This record gives sequence, structure tokens and C-alpha cells, in this order.
Amino acid sequence: MIQAVASTASPSPQDVIAACCSAARDAAKQLRSLPDPAKADALRAAAAALREDAADILAANARDMAAGEARGLSGAMLDRLKLDEARLAAIANSVEAVAALPDPVGEEIDRRTAPAGMTLRRVRVPIGVIGIIYESRPNVTVDAAVLCVRSGNAAILRGGSEAMHSNRALHASLARGLASAGLPEGAVQLVPTQDREAVGAMLAAAGGIDLIIPRGGKSLVARVQADARVPVLAHLDGICHSFVHASADPEMAQSIALNAKLRRTGVCGAMETLLIDQDYPHAAPLLAALADAACELRGDDMTMELEPRAVSASDEDWDTEYLDAILSVAFVEGLDGALEHIARHSSGHTDAIIASDMAAAKRFQAEVDSAIVMVNASSQFADGGEFGLGAEIGIATGRLHARGPVALEGLTTYKWLVDGEGHIRA
Amino acid sequence: MIQAVASTASPSPQDVIAACCSAARDAAKQLRSLPDPAKADALRAAAAALREDAADILAANARDMAAGEARGLSGAMLDRLKLDEARLAAIANSVEAVAALPDPVGEEIDRRTAPAGMTLRRVRVPIGVIGIIYESRPNVTVDAAVLCVRSGNAAILRGGSEAMHSNRALHASLARGLASAGLPEGAVQLVPTQDREAVGAMLAAAGGIDLIIPRGGKSLVARVQADARVPVLAHLDGICHSFVHASADPEMAQSIALNAKLRRTGVCGAMETLLIDQDYPHAAPLLAALADAACELRGDDMTMELEPRAVSASDEDWDTEYLDAILSVAFVEGLDGALEHIARHSSGHTDAIIASDMAAAKRFQAEVDSAIVMVNASSQFADGGEFGLGAEIGIATGRLHARGPVALEGLTTYKWLVDGEGHIRA
Repeated sequence: MIQAVASTASPSPQDVIAACCSAARDAAKQLRSLPDPAKADALRAAAAALREDAADILAANARDMAAGEARGLSGAMLDRLKLDEARLAAIANSVEAVAALPDPVGEEIDRRTAPAGMTLRRVRVPIGVIGIIYESRPNVTVDAAVLCVRSGNAAILRGGSEAMHSNRALHASLARGLASAGLPEGAVQLVPTQDREAVGAMLAAAGGIDLIIPRGGKSLVARVQADARVPVLAHLDGICHSFVHASADPEMAQSIALNAKLRRTGVCGAMETLLIDQDYPHAAPLLAALADAACELRGDDMTMELEPRAVSASDEDWDTEYLDAILSVAFVEGLDGALEHIARHSSGHTDAIIASDMAAAKRFQAEVDSAIVMVNASSQFADGGEFGLGAEIGIATGRLHARGPVALEGLTTYKWLVDGEGHIRA
Repeated sequence: MIQAVASTASPSPQDVIAACCSAARDAAKQLRSLPDPAKADALRAAAAALREDAADILAANARDMAAGEARGLSGAMLDRLKLDEARLAAIANSVEAVAALPDPVGEEIDRRTAPAGMTLRRVRVPIGVIGIIYESRPNVTVDAAVLCVRSGNAAILRGGSEAMHSNRALHASLARGLASAGLPEGAVQLVPTQDREAVGAMLAAAGGIDLIIPRGGKSLVARVQADARVPVLAHLDGICHSFVHASADPEMAQSIALNAKLRRTGVCGAMETLLIDQDYPHAAPLLAALADAACELRGDDMTMELEPRAVSASDEDWDTEYLDAILSVAFVEGLDGALEHIARHSSGHTDAIIASDMAAAKRFQAEVDSAIVMVNASSQFADGGEFGLGAEIGIATGRLHARGPVALEGLTTYKWLVDGEGHIRA
């Protein structure tokens, strides 16, 4: 944790972060060589501690909830903040699920023989020290930390003020469990100050922190992206499109469209714009089904012609992530029209086509430049668990290092191992 | 290229870079869908153009050489700047070699079935727009550009002033060849201003440029790292260690040590520090062989005891990349001592152990946290061609996206393709 300072003045946020980085770096050296069973055991000890400390954690959360209500947080925000016995049990269960995941560290990615004859192997290693800057959801304190530990990384967590008591209680419990299994204190740290400058210090900690992962609203992510000197794994907008090709099966199109928009409107993979091929013959019933399900439709002229409950879309609507039961709708000239609209408006997260014409489907997958490109599936599947990755620290929409759902593999890098027999270069 | 501006004032460096980024982004959209044979043909056309234009290129180089000599550039710098018929022929040949490399774009990295049943495939796609900021060596103009084109990326090149005429001639020839095969002008651009602010504008071009690769000396790379808002693939110091374990075969140890230091002293993989196990019985003849080969030895007390020609090492010498026939030498307490020295002083590039004890060798490979970790081979092999990657745009010592020699694969990212049959999420 943080070393006691000799002076009577409080350490500055910069000093606090520097001390966190130093402790994390030392812990990372140990974590990187820790064998699989030791990491798994430590996580199971952490899960047990979370269950044992449930009453304390819920009491801390009650303090945050009371403060939040007094401050007038919205219903949605209070819901994100809230922990109850069921949610806490789910958090502890997910820690055990992560403990059971295969260890990515040490995995051999590939092997080849060099022209001069040495064997070359690429093996996975942890990234090192990962900083997580997040808001609202206290479960991130646990979820992000355990993914880091599982992949041999040290974590520095900086949560939002609204969840301060919850985060501290969750962290204390987690740390107790990890320590009981012999992990160093620096393995998972919670930054002990809510001073905004601490975030700036983390963003500037090149060499101290190897990767920053922001989890939260657009303004947090944008600030992190703008100010970071440390590499950032960012999850940006989810302006996701589903395109109903002329060849789409109407039952499939309706089923997917309803699910993609309305299963959970607040997730990043929720459909925000529906594109319909002008030659698709079943557009009216599709639009009616969405309107019947209480989805507000904001569309172009043809949309309003076919569905009287639709209203006119403004220019901004094509670039809006509603995270609500609101949908932009546009009719396009075939696949070319859809590709053109997506190229201009997609945020590069997840875009989907519904089609029976497989040539059109393949061309869509080839030409759409998003992290996830789907054929005949709901964009709500954009999720690490649904991708079979076991867990997810976020969905990266940047182009480097990892793209799409980031799970344990995304928290590793690799090194080259060269096995020679006295080889020298000519 | 650059659009003509309406006003009579010269465009600012920022405007020039903005125009380059726009043209590159448009070109990248085309390049990303270009089939393998089209890219290969374009590169072969470029190679042919380079051969046809040899006289013009050499004449341009002669202007740079004359200016360089007049300015008093060092012998080493003039040698890096110089092109002759043989070097130019080698450049053209390497373009054809890159044309013959397998296309990484579209390669399926892996495939799995999602828990809900869809097929998930990860396929390689180009990164997009790559900026290369470089000094001295005019061949980078061609080498970097063709690796970008081969992997479906657009390139924006910004070379050093000392090679301005050479770079312009090489670029003009390259562009002529690529255009003759139908590639857009924005595929490979050379920034047409040597104004220092153009570099700053490139570093700030988040959204315009997807990745910056600096090629040059430490101060260039450090500036880029410090100022870039765009992700950087940096090649930092090559403070490479070779550790002679007590179990090392003496002939192998000597052969590797001489090669690692002296084959070519100016390459990043050259050994800069020799660590010798205090229990290695053949240290004196090893040191003598290095001194006989005119290598200056700067070492600790035991080094100077065993080899009279050695001088005393200062503290800074352990952190110095000499790029010369100078070697730091330290005796260490076994493998633990070597690991401790390397943890403190290695730049994370390439470190090697020479040992017959395979358990020691394996432990060295497990615990050293460098991009390349070798057993019984010369660190001079730290090179993309020697790794069988066919080419190299640089050696990345950062931890994310790519590590070690970066070739075509490192210039790609991936996207997830989801193949469903109407799948919706529960």
C-alpha cells in the first residue's frame, strides 16, 4: 500500500500515484512468475473473502446510496451504483469463474525455425501494470482487478466518488483474500484519494503504468484519450448498425432487429441505426413491430411514409448513441448504400447485416471496417462472455493491440524465445 | 498529393499534414480491399521504376552528399546517407522480395464457436494510415513504404533534411511505379516540407494517422514518444546483455561473444554488456580474445584483474549503448546475479544466456522480461529477416501491439467476423 510519509503534510496526488506505481511495479515482477495454481488459489481466496465480508460491503454501499439519493442522482445512476445480496453473490461467483479460466501466461503463440536454424517461440507474458479509471459501477473494482491478477498483471484502480465507500469495502475484502494467499500488497491497489489530479497523474505515468483502461461515460473516456501519455485501451461509442438486405428472411429480420434494439437498450452493442434496403419487401411490418414494442423511430421520408408513428430524423440522429428505446431508421440503395452510410456514421464497434444472399453477406463482412462485423446475428452479442472469452475488461474500438471484446489475452503481450546451439550471424 | 490552395500564401505545416492525412485516409480505404496480386504487381512496378530512375536518384543523392560534406557531417553519417549503384540495386531487390511475401490481410487468425452457437472468426486487416518519421537513411523511404503497401496501409513519410533530395527522388520513382499499377496517389506520400512543425502536426494527428513509427536516433525517438497523441511503435535503446553461465561451453561462449559485440557494432542487437558467472573457469581467455579483436573492455575489478587491457567501468557504463567496439563487463553471482543486473540495466530489447545447463537456460528465458530472450545464440540475430519474417519496419521494445521485430503482421490489426443463423441474445 502507500508508505507512510515523513512530513506532516498530506502527500500530493502526484506522490500518491508515484507510490502506487512503485508498489505495483514491484508486485508485477512477482505476479509475472506466479504459477497458474497460485493465481487461481488467490482468486478463490478473494471470492471467499467477498462472501465473508458481505455485510460490511453492503453497509458501505448503503452509505453511497444514501449520499447519492441526497445528491439527486438519477434512477439509472442509482441502479448502476446499487449492490444487494444477489449482485454481490454474482460478483463473488464471477471471481471464481475467472479463477477457473485457463492461464494465458506462458502460452506458446507460435513457433518457427529461423533461416539460420534457431528455434523461435513466441510466448505470452503479462503486460505489467494496468490502471483502471472508472465511474459508477462498484463491481468494476472486483471485475477488473481479478482479470488483471489472472493474467499476471498488477492493477491500480481509481473509482468514482459516488461509489467511494463501496469501492473501498470491496477492495479491502479483495486485498485481504489475495494477501491470505501470499500475493503482495501492490497486486491490487485502490487509489486512496478522490482528488481529480490523481487521474491526471495516472494518465501521465509513462513508465509507471503500462496500459490504462477507462470504464465509464463518454466524457471520462474522452478526457483519458486526450490527456494520456500512457497507452489507452479505449471503448468508444457504440453507434451500431443493422442492415436488412433485400434478401433477408422477414422473420429473422424482425427477430434480430427487436433483440438488437430492445433486449437491453443501455449496452454498447445495442442497435442505434436500422438500415433497410429500399428493395426489402417487408419493411412496413418490421417498423410496426418496433413501434408496437414502444421503440421511438426517427427516420427518413420513406420511414415516415411506411410507419405513421415515426418522426423525422435530424442530421445529428445518424451519429447518436441513444442507449434508449429510440432508433434511427434509413432506407438505403442496396448493399452499396448501406456500406456508404456505415462508412460515414459507424463508430467502428459492431455492425450487422441480415441477408439470405451469402455473397452480399460476405461482401459486407469484407468491407465494413468495424471491430465486430456480423451476419444474421444480434449486435447485443458484442460481449466477451458471449464470445466465449470467459470474461471481459471492456470492448476496444481502437485499432492497436486488441480490438473488440478484451479478455485475458488482451491483458498480455508476448516475448520471443530463441533457442540456439551456438548460432552466430554471418 | 497536396491539393492546390486558393490563397497565395503557402499552406502552413499543419495544413500540409491535414491534406496528407485526408489523401492517405482515402487511399487506405481502397488499399484495404485491394487483392494480393494487385498489391504485388504494384510493388513490382515500383521496383522497375526504381531501376529505370537510378541515374536521377543517384544524382539527387550526390547533391545531398555534397551538402552533407560541406556541412561537416561525420563519416558514419555520410555513410548512412550514401547511395551507390549497388545499394540502389539492393533497395529495388528488396521491393521485389516484399512483393513476394505472403499477404497478411485476410488471414484467419483463429476461429471458435460462441456459446450461443455462432461461428466467430478473427481476420487480419490493415491498420490504416501509418506515419513514418525518420532520419539519415534514404532507403527507409522505400523500405517502410513498401511494407505499408504490402499490408494494405497508406504511408505518410517524413524524412530528414540531410537526405531531402534523395528521398524526393526515391519517392517520385516509387509513386510513379505504384500509380502505373493503378494505386491512388495517397498510397505513399512524402511530406513536402522540412519544417519542423510538420513533425509536430503528424504527432498530433489522432484520427488522421493510426500509428507512428520513428526510425532514427535516440533524440528523435524520445521526442516522438513524448509529444505523440497518436500511438507510437517505438524502438528504444538496445542495451543488450549476454550472460556466460558457469556451464557454458568455452568455444561457444567465445564465438558468440565475439559475434554479438563485433559482427557489426552499430546495430541495435549488438551486445553492450557481457556478464560472466564468477564460477565460469574460462573467463580470462574470453576477455583476451575480445581485447585481441580490438574491443575496449570497461569492467569491474575482477575484469581488470583477469585482463590487463581492461579499464575501470563507471556507473553510467552499465546503462550505455556504445554502438562501438566498446564493451561493459561485469562478473556476477550465478544466474541470480545475472537476472538482477539485467532487471536493473536492460533496455528490454535482447538478452542472451550461454549455458550447457538447460535448467538455467530455461529459467533465464522465463524470468528475463525483454522482447527477445536467447539461449546459445548471438544477439545480432535480433532482426526481422533473421527471424524469417521477410522484412522489418523496426524492432519494437514497447509492450503493446507488437514486440520485437515488426514485419507485415505488426502492420495489421484484426476484426471479428460473426456468422449467425438468426441468433438473438437471451
